[in-house]
Amino acid sequence: MCVGLDPRAKNLPADLLRAGDQSFSAVAAAYARFCNGVSDVVAPLVPVVKVQAAFFEELGPPGMAAMAQVIEHAQALGLLVIVDAKRNDIGSTAEAYARGYLGREESAWHADALTVSPYLGDDSLTPFVEIARERGAGVFVLVKTSNPGGAMLQDLRCDGRTLYGRVAEHMEGLAAATAGTCGYGMVGAVVGATYPAQLVELRRAMPHTWFLVPGYGSQGGTAADVAAAFDDRGLGAIINNSRGIIFAHERPEFATRYGAAGWQSAVEAATREMIDALRRV
Amino acid sequence: MCVGLDPRAKNLPADLLRAGDQSFSAVAAAYARFCNGVSDVVAPLVPVVKVQAAFFEELGPPGMAAMAQVIEHAQALGLLVIVDAKRNDIGSTAEAYARGYLGREESAWHADALTVSPYLGDDSLTPFVEIARERGAGVFVLVKTSNPGGAMLQDLRCDGRTLYGRVAEHMEGLAAATAGTCGYGMVGAVVGATYPAQLVELRRAMPHTWFLVPGYGSQGGTAADVAAAFDDRGLGAIINNSRGIIFAHERPEFATRYGAAGWQSAVEAATREMIDALRRV
Repeated sequence: MCVGLDPRAKNLPADLLRAGDQSFSAVAAAYARFCNGVSDVVAPLVPVVKVQAAFFEELGPPGMAAMAQVIEHAQALGLLVIVDAKRNDIGSTAEAYARGYLGREESAWHADALTVSPYLGDDSLTPFVEIARERGAGVFVLVKTSNPGGAMLQDLRCDGRTLYGRVAEHMEGLAAATAGTCGYGMVGAVVGATYPAQLVELRRAMPHTWFLVPGYGSQGGTAADVAAAFDDRGLGAIINNSRGIIFAHERPEFATRYGAAGWQSAVEAATREMIDALRRV
Repeated sequence: MCVGLDPRAKNLPADLLRAGDQSFSAVAAAYARFCNGVSDVVAPLVPVVKVQAAFFEELGPPGMAAMAQVIEHAQALGLLVIVDAKRNDIGSTAEAYARGYLGREESAWHADALTVSPYLGDDSLTPFVEIARERGAGVFVLVKTSNPGGAMLQDLRCDGRTLYGRVAEHMEGLAAATAGTCGYGMVGAVVGATYPAQLVELRRAMPHTWFLVPGYGSQGGTAADVAAAFDDRGLGAIINNSRGIIFAHERPEFATRYGAAGWQSAVEAATREMIDALRRV
């Protein structure tokens, strides 16, 4: 299980952001406090958090500084950090993103893994894979995303096969080439919880590829939907939940029990609930 | 013509970065000085610069602060600024990127336009188009990129048509729906100079769509190659050159004439040379 750190000003617990000050700096500071507070609670329970770059980037430079603090705090607690930034560019520019994000020691952002978009093709993916390999980091490439509109391109049949299937085949080749003793490589795929049939198909087609599975909870994916993302040993998948965990204080069942001031207790309860749900399937 | 601000430490003129200090902050400060120095020279000659986010992002938070300064400086000189960040995500997260980048007044980054990647489909593109429309900004979506590997997915034939052709058709619909009196909408397409036959095909298929054309110069695209990106009135295309202009001091013909200290004169000469070459075709 992965907890997604996707802060949004309108959903923050009331005491974290003063109503009067909505400057980029004030919101960025509140995001750092909030995300660090989530990490404090979930660090003993889950192995990894996913930081959504968009919400920090929306605030400009102060937001980016807050994102760096959130990454550092989570890692100090022993968590792995995936930066969900869906970056890419051509060759030498892709290298700059890869060098900037990947690797705890060497890079400016210290990410353990980064999400990457595949539209620019194989030569745009190579720098991420090579630098991740050199630095013991990981890459998750978008294959089949959780949103309805993802079908527009991803589900097109290209010479008899789906576009997402072609991306999957390419990524599985890179994963197999870097597989460690656990059987998985350092290349992963993003496969949405909202398409359970494709999860089954892709798990079979990609035996060496980690799956990062968004779409659980608020987007409609259930524990039963994501069971197929795991292999026979119960390994190989990371199921992400963002809003359902970090804004658990807004869910009716937790709001009554904990109130806004008890938002961290709500985060803990929601995390334990999801772990149990995943264990059961 | 658009000048691409793609700073790279190893190519900076010698006096801009002291050899002893290669910290992220020192390199970021040098990038800001360098890019601002380029903007000073090109502002009277071209309408727009394109800031490549990857090279700033590579340096972490100090790099992002430098990028903000570079955008602000260029706009103060009267230049339009395209942020080349190739962002995207699903629905509400795409909105955060769109709100964060698009619009001179309202957004944290103040960009006049942003490049966007299409793999996540139509519902991921909508927030960018809507927010650009509200704020008088623009969006350039990747259609046919300038790198060889772009062919891996973009050139696939999907039910008899290329994938890039399908993206093109979708973007042209959005451009036509927002077309102003000049005949162009606020949605553009990225189409590489390195594929002149596809430029011809796409110009014909996308009469309401601005083209942002990378790949001129260092990547091999010539003025003759990009002539087809313009309409019969000589409008509708923005031809970008990054390394060929900003690192003109390294090109043999300029290195001898201006030396490293005269790097801004080399930038000016290279810019005038490209304007002349485009005018001739």
